[in-house]
Amino acid sequence: MAERDRSAAGRQQAPGHVTFAGAGPSDPDLLTLGVARALAQADVILHDRLVSAAVLALAGPQAVLVETGKEGFGPGMAQDDITALILGFARAGRDVLRLKSGDAGIFGRLGEELDALEAAGTGFTVLPGITAASAAAAAIGQSLTQRGRNADLRIITGHDMAGFAEQDWRALARPGAVATIYMGKRAARFLQGRLLMHGADPATGLSLVENASRPDQRVIATTLARLPADSAALTGPAVILLGLAPRAAALPAALPHSAYQETAR
Amino acid sequence: MAERDRSAAGRQQAPGHVTFAGAGPSDPDLLTLGVARALAQADVILHDRLVSAAVLALAGPQAVLVETGKEGFGPGMAQDDITALILGFARAGRDVLRLKSGDAGIFGRLGEELDALEAAGTGFTVLPGITAASAAAAAIGQSLTQRGRNADLRIITGHDMAGFAEQDWRALARPGAVATIYMGKRAARFLQGRLLMHGADPATGLSLVENASRPDQRVIATTLARLPADSAALTGPAVILLGLAPRAAALPAALPHSAYQETAR
Repeated sequence: MAERDRSAAGRQQAPGHVTFAGAGPSDPDLLTLGVARALAQADVILHDRLVSAAVLALAGPQAVLVETGKEGFGPGMAQDDITALILGFARAGRDVLRLKSGDAGIFGRLGEELDALEAAGTGFTVLPGITAASAAAAAIGQSLTQRGRNADLRIITGHDMAGFAEQDWRALARPGAVATIYMGKRAARFLQGRLLMHGADPATGLSLVENASRPDQRVIATTLARLPADSAALTGPAVILLGLAPRAAALPAALPHSAYQETAR
Repeated sequence: MAERDRSAAGRQQAPGHVTFAGAGPSDPDLLTLGVARALAQADVILHDRLVSAAVLALAGPQAVLVETGKEGFGPGMAQDDITALILGFARAGRDVLRLKSGDAGIFGRLGEELDALEAAGTGFTVLPGITAASAAAAAIGQSLTQRGRNADLRIITGHDMAGFAEQDWRALARPGAVATIYMGKRAARFLQGRLLMHGADPATGLSLVENASRPDQRVIATTLARLPADSAALTGPAVILLGLAPRAAALPAALPHSAYQETAR
């Protein structure tokens, strides 16, 4: 209880409150009602580069928008500078919205920013968002879990601080394994190599979903054997769905404005 | 191409279209804008038992609501009957919404229903939803992934068709592993046993989030040693977050109407 009393006192010294929110992958239709309301009300919106213009258009006229960068391998503000900005606005009593693409808690570096707020005694709320895995699976018309196939879904990253991210390859190489791989485009050859080395079938089906939920969304059906070649054709942010091929019947109806590239090479 | 032509012809014979949507864990604020619109427009809404009354209140006045059951271990309509109903309404030209709690593609048996629609040549769209893992992590103020801790998030189920679900226990028992466990309440003693057997530290932190996003949401901080005892106190649907303790500072501010039970036994 002493811990909580101290924390409450800290919040009184540093008033202000920060709302962290996930903006979903891009389409404003994938915003939650709660995040749409937070967008309309915020005084200051600090957003990652991947948050779409269509989402930001729902900000209120009073809002100051600050882009913090942080996209895949690209440049961006230093994390300390972002944190200092957030705290500065919160202490000035502004209604601060920290907007990250997808779900803030999945590969959004949320923990580092919450650590800083907790240390400063500034209060916060986290509003969940639609993560790219959910949008990509919806785009290919497949369930991420399935009785008799996988009782375990893995959400992994293609690279981390140390470079390409090591994973539990033996498990991922098993028939029926399903994983969604974020930031995997440049790691495609590495992923292929590790999975084949651990016994994966080169014919394992994968889907690449580029620009998930954007008007220029593209779904590519591929296999482990063709993964590096097909990944090389991607230009936008992409999610790799390991173990899931696009459901053919879903595509024309579900994606009126998307191109479906059949890669039957 | 022959495959796709046949499929298009099938859709002409059996007109109609079904929208599958994830309703999120319960709070209407966690509905996406797209799902809220689908709810307002649908003629027929077939929903799982866990979809909340607050969400269903957003259905249009014209809507016929059909509850299909299917909750955890409880009874419900047979899957074949649900599929027959969906197809019947779709063939009658009704605007059909199949509403599942959370994200339809995560432990929602979406695949079986899409298989049936695909076989019948009926078109469909899948609208993603907020899965319980995202809402539960937001409730405890923690990120599901974190640099230097976990580059791999597992979403697993406590039980499957065969009973308690076997998982990759060795990986889950490692320090820093993070997993969200759905339908894990009754499997708590099994989960504890498997994890300890594979070398997990009994002091490993876990959070139990009961009734995530509901007004009666409850967050319980526990450890692997206390997991069965603390799970026994749960009465509503719960998500177990392995490897994540609630962030103390997040709770009072983030959850104005939730009880925070400190289990410092």
